[in-house]
Amino acid sequence: MCGVFGAFSASGRPVLEDVYLGLYALQHRGQESAGVSWIDHGNVHSLKGMGLVHNALDQGTLSSIPASSAIGHVRYSTFGGSLFQNAQPLAANYARGPVAIAHNGNLTNADGLMHYLENRGAIFQSTCDTETILHLMAHQAHKNPLDALMDALRRLEGAYSLAVLLEDRLVAARDPWGFRPLVLGVRDDVTYVASESCALDIVGAKLLRDVEPGEVVVIDAKGTLSLRIPMTPRKGFHCSFEYVYFARPDSVLDGRSVYQARKELGRRLALRCPCSEAELVAGMPDSGTLAALGYAEASACPFEIAVVRNRYVGRTFIQPTQRVREIGVRIKLNPNGEIFRDRDAVVVDDSIVRGTTASRVVSLIRDAGARSVHLRIASPPVRFPCYYGIDTPCSEELAAARMDLEALRREVGADSLAYLDETDLVESIGLPEEKLCTACFSGRYLEGGTCHDLEL
Amino acid sequence: MCGVFGAFSASGRPVLEDVYLGLYALQHRGQESAGVSWIDHGNVHSLKGMGLVHNALDQGTLSSIPASSAIGHVRYSTFGGSLFQNAQPLAANYARGPVAIAHNGNLTNADGLMHYLENRGAIFQSTCDTETILHLMAHQAHKNPLDALMDALRRLEGAYSLAVLLEDRLVAARDPWGFRPLVLGVRDDVTYVASESCALDIVGAKLLRDVEPGEVVVIDAKGTLSLRIPMTPRKGFHCSFEYVYFARPDSVLDGRSVYQARKELGRRLALRCPCSEAELVAGMPDSGTLAALGYAEASACPFEIAVVRNRYVGRTFIQPTQRVREIGVRIKLNPNGEIFRDRDAVVVDDSIVRGTTASRVVSLIRDAGARSVHLRIASPPVRFPCYYGIDTPCSEELAAARMDLEALRREVGADSLAYLDETDLVESIGLPEEKLCTACFSGRYLEGGTCHDLEL
Amino acid sequence: MCGVFGAFSASGRPVLEDVYLGLYALQHRGQESAGVSWIDHGNVHSLKGMGLVHNALDQGTLSSIPASSAIGHVRYSTFGGSLFQNAQPLAANYARGPVAIAHNGNLTNADGLMHYLENRGAIFQSTCDTETILHLMAHQAHKNPLDALMDALRRLEGAYSLAVLLEDRLVAARDPWGFRPLVLGVRDDVTYVASESCALDIVGAKLLRDVEPGEVVVIDAKGTLSLRIPMTPRKGFHCSFEYVYFARPDSVLDGRSVYQARKELGRRLALRCPCSEAELVAGMPDSGTLAALGYAEASACPFEIAVVRNRYVGRTFIQPTQRVREIGVRIKLNPNGEIFRDRDAVVVDDSIVRGTTASRVVSLIRDAGARSVHLRIASPPVRFPCYYGIDTPCSEELAAARMDLEALRREVGADSLAYLDETDLVESIGLPEEKLCTACFSGRYLEGGTCHDLEL
Amino acid sequence: MCGVFGAFSASGRPVLEDVYLGLYALQHRGQESAGVSWIDHGNVHSLKGMGLVHNALDQGTLSSIPASSAIGHVRYSTFGGSLFQNAQPLAANYARGPVAIAHNGNLTNADGLMHYLENRGAIFQSTCDTETILHLMAHQAHKNPLDALMDALRRLEGAYSLAVLLEDRLVAARDPWGFRPLVLGVRDDVTYVASESCALDIVGAKLLRDVEPGEVVVIDAKGTLSLRIPMTPRKGFHCSFEYVYFARPDSVLDGRSVYQARKELGRRLALRCPCSEAELVAGMPDSGTLAALGYAEASACPFEIAVVRNRYVGRTFIQPTQRVREIGVRIKLNPNGEIFRDRDAVVVDDSIVRGTTASRVVSLIRDAGARSVHLRIASPPVRFPCYYGIDTPCSEELAAARMDLEALRREVGADSLAYLDETDLVESIGLPEEKLCTACFSGRYLEGGTCHDLEL
Repeated sequence: MCGVFGAFSASGRPVLEDVYLGLYALQHRGQESAGVSWIDHGNVHSLKGMGLVHNALDQGTLSSIPASSAIGHVRYSTFGGSLFQNAQPLAANYARGPVAIAHNGNLTNADGLMHYLENRGAIFQSTCDTETILHLMAHQAHKNPLDALMDALRRLEGAYSLAVLLEDRLVAARDPWGFRPLVLGVRDDVTYVASESCALDIVGAKLLRDVEPGEVVVIDAKGTLSLRIPMTPRKGFHCSFEYVYFARPDSVLDGRSVYQARKELGRRLALRCPCSEAELVAGMPDSGTLAALGYAEASACPFEIAVVRNRYVGRTFIQPTQRVREIGVRIKLNPNGEIFRDRDAVVVDDSIVRGTTASRVVSLIRDAGARSVHLRIASPPVRFPCYYGIDTPCSEELAAARMDLEALRREVGADSLAYLDETDLVESIGLPEEKLCTACFSGRYLEGGTCHDLEL
Repeated sequence: MCGVFGAFSASGRPVLEDVYLGLYALQHRGQESAGVSWIDHGNVHSLKGMGLVHNALDQGTLSSIPASSAIGHVRYSTFGGSLFQNAQPLAANYARGPVAIAHNGNLTNADGLMHYLENRGAIFQSTCDTETILHLMAHQAHKNPLDALMDALRRLEGAYSLAVLLEDRLVAARDPWGFRPLVLGVRDDVTYVASESCALDIVGAKLLRDVEPGEVVVIDAKGTLSLRIPMTPRKGFHCSFEYVYFARPDSVLDGRSVYQARKELGRRLALRCPCSEAELVAGMPDSGTLAALGYAEASACPFEIAVVRNRYVGRTFIQPTQRVREIGVRIKLNPNGEIFRDRDAVVVDDSIVRGTTASRVVSLIRDAGARSVHLRIASPPVRFPCYYGIDTPCSEELAAARMDLEALRREVGADSLAYLDETDLVESIGLPEEKLCTACFSGRYLEGGTCHDLEL
Repeated sequence: MCGVFGAFSASGRPVLEDVYLGLYALQHRGQESAGVSWIDHGNVHSLKGMGLVHNALDQGTLSSIPASSAIGHVRYSTFGGSLFQNAQPLAANYARGPVAIAHNGNLTNADGLMHYLENRGAIFQSTCDTETILHLMAHQAHKNPLDALMDALRRLEGAYSLAVLLEDRLVAARDPWGFRPLVLGVRDDVTYVASESCALDIVGAKLLRDVEPGEVVVIDAKGTLSLRIPMTPRKGFHCSFEYVYFARPDSVLDGRSVYQARKELGRRLALRCPCSEAELVAGMPDSGTLAALGYAEASACPFEIAVVRNRYVGRTFIQPTQRVREIGVRIKLNPNGEIFRDRDAVVVDDSIVRGTTASRVVSLIRDAGARSVHLRIASPPVRFPCYYGIDTPCSEELAAARMDLEALRREVGADSLAYLDETDLVESIGLPEEKLCTACFSGRYLEGGTCHDLEL
Repeated sequence: MCGVFGAFSASGRPVLEDVYLGLYALQHRGQESAGVSWIDHGNVHSLKGMGLVHNALDQGTLSSIPASSAIGHVRYSTFGGSLFQNAQPLAANYARGPVAIAHNGNLTNADGLMHYLENRGAIFQSTCDTETILHLMAHQAHKNPLDALMDALRRLEGAYSLAVLLEDRLVAARDPWGFRPLVLGVRDDVTYVASESCALDIVGAKLLRDVEPGEVVVIDAKGTLSLRIPMTPRKGFHCSFEYVYFARPDSVLDGRSVYQARKELGRRLALRCPCSEAELVAGMPDSGTLAALGYAEASACPFEIAVVRNRYVGRTFIQPTQRVREIGVRIKLNPNGEIFRDRDAVVVDDSIVRGTTASRVVSLIRDAGARSVHLRIASPPVRFPCYYGIDTPCSEELAAARMDLEALRREVGADSLAYLDETDLVESIGLPEEKLCTACFSGRYLEGGTCHDLEL
């Protein structure tokens, strides 16, 4: 759960402010840290900070730096703890020059690679899997940087969507399965790479296309070159959870609109799991809103914005004092008694992970006066952890893995509880079933995902 | 445009963290500064800071202070510039003990009072009209603090909803016309005063009632006492713009639900100003959303969340560099091309003030591919400035005061433009016409608003 | 124990940077806070901060402000605690315009004045006696500011050396006894007022003369005017402790060089309290150094810089942890074993207040190998508190007030201990005995110091 | 020009606060940055900051960390710019565990080592020569850390006095010539290593002995082990400039008291370069003070502390504005007119580097009224740059290299100018001539200093 962004101007225009804005549009993908890197006179420079983009980076400083190619990163920690030293991009000047890397995903063979590299003299500065890519390149100091990068990519396993800055070049690379999204855009002479298309919109760029699974796009002053990571798969195994929850609704990923996918999930949910007595449909803000709208449309039941989310929460740390624990989720979400009172309500959410929030909100809605609360989930039960870059808890903490549907209904305190099934999930998204990763719902992880040996 | 909050525990329980949370729920009323005051051993103490509540105040510090009565304030500057010295509450230890004041509103006779007081030796520390109340009290040092406060209130003209902290007492006071909202709540032995009921919800308190126009509620360990400001009006002249735009949708003010009022504004707008060709109804986020939902319901046209608001904007300062001006409103709002493309759209907003945002968003929606854009405004044209605490610009800057409807339609670039009329406004809110201030729409300011002379 | 500085340019040259430098030279008089005030377009502005001058104030900011008259202050708290709100100058815009005051000294009738003023409506913002002067002026709003200031001064009792900034005027005022020093200087068209002459040296100004006891010097574009505070004394009662300890050695105060006075104190000490067996003379750094040098010269015994003071201490807060208490004074002072080992030493200090430091250093010197340590004090025993602006403890904490000479010798652990007598003190300083305040040594406070009643 | 400090407690007592205090005593050796490192559960941790010790590090934090072995560093940049990433200690967890290094000196073969290591995959994080030692160790991952360290030391050329922290061990190492000082101390069960003995004094430790040239002292729970760097020299080539200027006067280095050496330099200067007409002897503060005292003693001429140094300068950055340039050195140094006026003065300094300060101070002293100013320098002319860790400028900027004695006298504006010769320098210090590096005076650099090839 991270976001990457890169920009390259063929005519030498400054791009750092565009990178700032691109990160700004991507910060739903990571609020822990943000950073940018650029190259000046053969040396790589970085600015990074903890927290949201506007806390972590100074827009004024960035707008005054005339770099014409740059990358940026927003981070939500997956592998590697919440430390400043893990803030990305990771950058270094090594024997063959400057390099900076921004990574979204999770390498499944990071441990083995780190062990291998340390025994050959590497000193790791972070606890972040991304740093292995830098050292793999540095240990191929006889090759030019692009060849060294291609060689490094060949050795990686797992999920990666990368923006890499080399001297005079911006490189976008996506793993052979295409777990995480990565798109290309263009505005005048500037070529962009971004985790989601909404980041192209903010800088006024046009969505060109998705980077393909296994593709390496090299952007320089002469144009754009497409290379292939020399490994077999390249078949597409896109994360379905991006459509369900993670991506921004105004993004289009691998050709599918996230907004349309979410409303369709809601519509199908209304058909599969109707609720005849409902007098209103409300979404759990903000993640369940679009599915609720689809549900309301398909069931011809009024849609209400009945749970108000405090706009300031989420970007704010509230200390968990005794009083705050007492108050609980009400700090974030306030069900509107004027709407719920004495009515039967359907409440739609995108998914249930630990179940804590769901049970608290159901209870608040009852306190607000609802006669009944029917919970509808616009995706199948989440029963398995993600190894490809989303920070889900282990199975023991996943509510749907710990108990059956009826037990879970009692746990969350709903009058009824129903989930969408996997077929509807796939059809709502609209991509071929074999090209969608549904591992967190189905447990069907990539076969041979850790298939090849290290031959360094 | 400010928010006030106060809490008094009869049993000596600490309340500062509740004040923090109350301000947190009220910060849509002011993001410029926040502060709290409490009294300890006969001395008043304050913590204040610039920016949002979580930047301005430290929750950890507040939760460790055992004060059992306290007040707080969030500020959006009206009278007095954006300076730290103007952050409220204003507090002082004067001859008769400690006092702290949090004020929402705007005194129309502040200049005269300041002049009068300075000539009698007062030294003003802020440029804020609220400070006159402190000095009026200090110049009655022979009276006890409550009598001095009552005497001071008698001399004020204009709008004020106040939370005042005295030694052993919390006082809530509302001007004789009740321009700005002020509510009372209770939880166990703690009595609360707040600008809006949503701030009672967050601390788990029950809404008791509104403070009445011209009422002064004195809360102490023995209970609650209701006094009257000795002036004739007391008739109720509640701000209609609170319902249209300013208050939070989950608040109930002077007995009317803001949510229901806004949906009703939209429903009536659909009946008065229909748009037969529309294929979708979208709201201008966030202020036009509920009216759009009402419009869609009444017109049986699909409601879409078609303009995405960047959740991080609003609490963030983006520097207006050349590049940012180029990008403009797209930094905040991204119209979703997947929804608008080749369709006729109704876009609903709560009001048009300067017209700049409306014209930019209409243009973005066209760029996103809409076939036509029909703008519907869920209130009458804003043509007059507010003198009672809302920071509207002067008439020359108000779009609807500068041009007629057709000129304004061309200015904002809409295919059609229509407004709700005043009768519908009043009926949607549901309060008697004579008890609603509609001055910003109608120009009918309070008669005799500056009627009585100063007899000090 | 504070320092004041002011500058007025008749030709409109910027002077704030000179004020910064003047304070820089005066910060031995106060390291708790520093501040400056200037007037711009009829409004007074201030910048203040806690700590040393370079932490409290930003030189770059000051050098960019074009004010042509300004005052500054460094504070070591006497009356009023260590709070930011007590940092000076105190400034206000009152009914008759802007005013700012920087004060060195201590008003002995502050409590009465505050009580009087509060009952007439004054709201005190600080706990600092200086604020009474502001309110006294504000309560004479019918008089012009200079007359109001003269009227206020008439009501003050105790010690004050003031720099006051009015619109178009800089005023220097010294109480009728002249407790604290105050000098005038000039460079080109700029007139300066400063607590000590060393602050004139740093800005390249020439020492003009001392402000006389009871004199008020008004500096404006037309020149300099000398007024008199209409009260009888004006006789001179200069603080002898400034010469013994407080002032900088390169200052000349009331016509006497501090350096020469200190060396003379040491010379006379050598004659009155010789030590025939001594092999070396060392000073307690830094306060005893010059007296030690005088002692060494007069006794023909070698002077050694045998106790090294850590140059970084004094401007540094070392937390009093267990380990730090164990180490004690050695953090600041390191006696050099190479010099003390197996030798008989005379150690000279300027005074003994609590006795703690003396006893610790004597013990360290013994540990460093000295055969004997003979302590010589270059002033009479300090037995009485100061009420005129120096922060001495009450009598119970003064070592020389609690015990006789022999007991004190044992307490500090010296082989012998001797003090200079009062006659030598007076003769070393070289001012007439009746013009020197020796109250902390003799207990002879100003007779009739609190003689006149308030007739306001 | 850096300082190192280390502490190891055999009984597990916390030592980080002692490291803080040790650095505090050493900060005359470097005020640019300070840092500490310790090992906890097999991982190395560091805290570092820019500026003085009390700004860079938080004593409270350090006193709460229970590490029983730790090292620290204060830095004045020599090789590698003034950047946070160059702050020491440099620390890493490499394949064989944690390691941290604090370095005083300058490696003359750093460039070659960096090139060699980068081609083998090393990624340098700093621009600091010290980092080569870490990478040399990491590239010997098959050896245990101590062997890898010994192997790394064998490859270094130039000057180094090191404190190295390994798991369970503290190592002190000094290059085979012993350029920079390094001493061992002990207090109870804690063994210390420090750049100067004054840092042992502050923690109450006893000076045990100097680390010998070419010696590696390994301190662990079992005791102390002395190893030898397997290279021929080990002959002693101690920096004479440490005695002349750099070390603190209360330190004893390689068996010689710095205080005695400096006074002796002054005494011999009085004999070689007398000044019969002088009426007073003053030192240039603080570096010339002790030589001036020696000069005064030997010439029976009165010693005066006639130039006052502002105690706050040196730890303060004064911005070089136009006004500050005008005022110049007077901000730091104030010659006392009461002493210099109408007298012939000898002024003693330790050395002349660029000559700028000398010429400005001579001019100030004349302005203060001196009849004549005779400058005496307590060491030979500095004509050659230092390659062993002192940050002297290149020859073109060295005043004594650019001009002859008479030209230099005119340049500094003195009535006469005289230097001590090299023989007196050596004899004053009291170490055998062949064991003293006088390269900056004589140009006699180490023969074969870059003698051995890299055989990696």
